[in-house]
Amino acid sequence: MANDTWFYENFEHTGSAIGFRIVRKLDEVQSPFQNIEIYQTTDFGNLMVIDGAMMVTTRENFFYHEMMSHAAIYTHAAPRNIVIIGGGDCGTLRECLKHADVASVVQCDIDEQVTRMAEKYFPELCESNGDPRATVMFDDGIAYMRNAAPGSIDIIIVDSTDPVGPAEGLFNRAFYENCFKALRPDGLLVQQSESPLALMHLIQDMCGAMREAGFTDFRTLPFPQPCYPTGYWSCTLASKSARDLARFRSHDAAAKTFSTEYYNAGVHQAALAQPEFIRRALKQS
Amino acid sequence: MANDTWFYENFEHTGSAIGFRIVRKLDEVQSPFQNIEIYQTTDFGNLMVIDGAMMVTTRENFFYHEMMSHAAIYTHAAPRNIVIIGGGDCGTLRECLKHADVASVVQCDIDEQVTRMAEKYFPELCESNGDPRATVMFDDGIAYMRNAAPGSIDIIIVDSTDPVGPAEGLFNRAFYENCFKALRPDGLLVQQSESPLALMHLIQDMCGAMREAGFTDFRTLPFPQPCYPTGYWSCTLASKSARDLARFRSHDAAAKTFSTEYYNAGVHQAALAQPEFIRRALKQS
Repeated sequence: MANDTWFYENFEHTGSAIGFRIVRKLDEVQSPFQNIEIYQTTDFGNLMVIDGAMMVTTRENFFYHEMMSHAAIYTHAAPRNIVIIGGGDCGTLRECLKHADVASVVQCDIDEQVTRMAEKYFPELCESNGDPRATVMFDDGIAYMRNAAPGSIDIIIVDSTDPVGPAEGLFNRAFYENCFKALRPDGLLVQQSESPLALMHLIQDMCGAMREAGFTDFRTLPFPQPCYPTGYWSCTLASKSARDLARFRSHDAAAKTFSTEYYNAGVHQAALAQPEFIRRALKQS
Repeated sequence: MANDTWFYENFEHTGSAIGFRIVRKLDEVQSPFQNIEIYQTTDFGNLMVIDGAMMVTTRENFFYHEMMSHAAIYTHAAPRNIVIIGGGDCGTLRECLKHADVASVVQCDIDEQVTRMAEKYFPELCESNGDPRATVMFDDGIAYMRNAAPGSIDIIIVDSTDPVGPAEGLFNRAFYENCFKALRPDGLLVQQSESPLALMHLIQDMCGAMREAGFTDFRTLPFPQPCYPTGYWSCTLASKSARDLARFRSHDAAAKTFSTEYYNAGVHQAALAQPEFIRRALKQS
């Protein structure tokens, strides 16, 4: 209808845009780090926008949060201690805590206001924040990793915004070296790695920096994410010691007792299939 | 930049929008059936828009065309005769003709102007139109299927626009009954089946109508398609006789000698994995 209101995000780097039909703006706050807006959409629930970039909607955040967590957790043999850098909406934290064997999850986001807004407008994502295994802290993730005890973490999940602005320091060799040091020998790093269609050079650069930091094997798993550029997104796993990242605990994944919307053992296996253009560009074994 | 020009399509039924940054409009024609516009984008090559709906871009049409063709062809044991209803941009035709064993492909689109515009602005999609096995005709696809010789076709590909406007008659029981009749006993129908995230009810209705028309088994394969609503799209296979549509000629697919951008045997297998919300909604075995 002509009177409809639409919120668009124009992605300058990709030349593409995503939009949602909006009922109204629900809230807006300027934190010390960024501008956070919340919109009510007609069809996708609530929408969080940070510095003009869409972060999460109620209806379709499950793709991202489930793939950022369960894929790495089932790739690791027995993860006990997980650290999430970023992830202030708490959706990845919730997914990690669905695993009964996980003993602790620390979430370190620089911006407390993101979590305060999530608590108010995405309460379902925050429903596990009070879990005794969870630590929700607000601090500089770069410093957190620099100061982490060596060999103390099984999985580091970098659930960041794009590599511009506050998250820029989460995509470089110095940060990855600190991650490498903080991981146990069989540890895994997983990072959101942008659109394989539109931003392949970012994935290549990221893997290059991870390799320089000492990581040995890499695997990029694509998945849908409608509110991000091109609707086609990815996470990339990196391992501290040599291993085949296409192997995972598929029997455990098939026997999972918690509920998901996207992830299951078949979906994990499917995400390991490499479309031709990705295979050619990344040459991941 | 403030002076950039963006073309957006607002999808009323899904409450979401897709946009591309535009250099300029290259062409526009009003055919007897629909309005066709061509834009030059900054990052996705040329863009064809029909009645305001994005149809195809140079850069990312491969997802759709490859999945609409190769998945069905490798699911059928030995397809010789293929009919494409719609498909006027000729991209699906090109993919079908990559299979040396296919003896004939008839493409029947109602609107000649779509193909004329494709020849001019997407010449790579039309590069096989002169193949001696190809018949490019412009006629009513509904009438074509009504008049087709019974038991004469191996695969029917319904490569249509959305089920409103000219394509509405390609999503109902009467049309599917004619398809069923025209197929050989081991024949397959494949139809583009919209967004599994946003338009699941359309997939359910479509499979219901196909079942009433006599089709026995169904399988919905999701894939990325950035220029369509939510960027997450699907095709649905339907079989005339009982069979497991999750089985396909994987060895042949793995040994294919032609080039693709997305499809390969692993990607086909991956598309058969059912995300939790799709599995629950469709209950396809």
